[in-house]
Amino acid sequence: MPAGDLDDKFSQFREHWQPKVVASLNGQEVKLAKILGEFPWHRHAEADELFLCWRGRFRLEFRDHAVEMGPGDYHLVPRGVEHRPVAEAEAEIVLFEPADVRNTGDVDDACFTAPQGVVL
Amino acid sequence: MPAGDLDDKFSQFREHWQPKVVASLNGQEVKLAKILGEFPWHRHAEADELFLCWRGRFRLEFRDHAVEMGPGDYHLVPRGVEHRPVAEAEAEIVLFEPADVRNTGDVDDACFTAPQGVVL
Repeated sequence: MPAGDLDDKFSQFREHWQPKVVASLNGQEVKLAKILGEFPWHRHAEADELFLCWRGRFRLEFRDHAVEMGPGDYHLVPRGVEHRPVAEAEAEIVLFEPADVRNTGDVDDACFTAPQGVVL
Repeated sequence: MPAGDLDDKFSQFREHWQPKVVASLNGQEVKLAKILGEFPWHRHAEADELFLCWRGRFRLEFRDHAVEMGPGDYHLVPRGVEHRPVAEAEAEIVLFEPADVRNTGDVDDACFTAPQGVVL
């Protein structure tokens, strides 16, 4: 049974924008990521994506507005909606989404597209 | 787009063992619950269930062991596995599981079985 402590799990990696799977259930995954800087604009055609801010602050940007996120704030990005997270200082986030979702969605980015299914 | 702050959402209700849906995505739900005391033993035949402890402490009991949960601890209970949460003082938990899962699973309990799909 996958189990753990989020602070401990976040302490086990340092790289940004490289989601780590900590639980797989019902065809979905719970992922952790550290983020810093601007991520590419992208959308997930067939996956709703829930962001939960665990530590730090970041901004979830949409084409027509932006949402400031701090610890305990969550936000659901429906499938098809273009978005990007932007963090001026490092933040730690938890993602809930279907298994095998690519972090950059419809965008293939040499720098930011990360491998899927990396288990922590 | 469903969004909010978990502390604020938890402040909006007081009752125990009555899960509230705060986000629906990909056929799944994110639910919040306040818990206190012993919940009935039960299992979910077709749903894996992720517990995340947000505030307080509780014990996730299985027939052959128990796991102590504090803030930031998460634990995945696979489908079919009998379990019950026990909280000696009030705790706040986040659940991630398929939509329309009954809180008491295979058990129909006059006291503890709660309505499904209650949105906060």
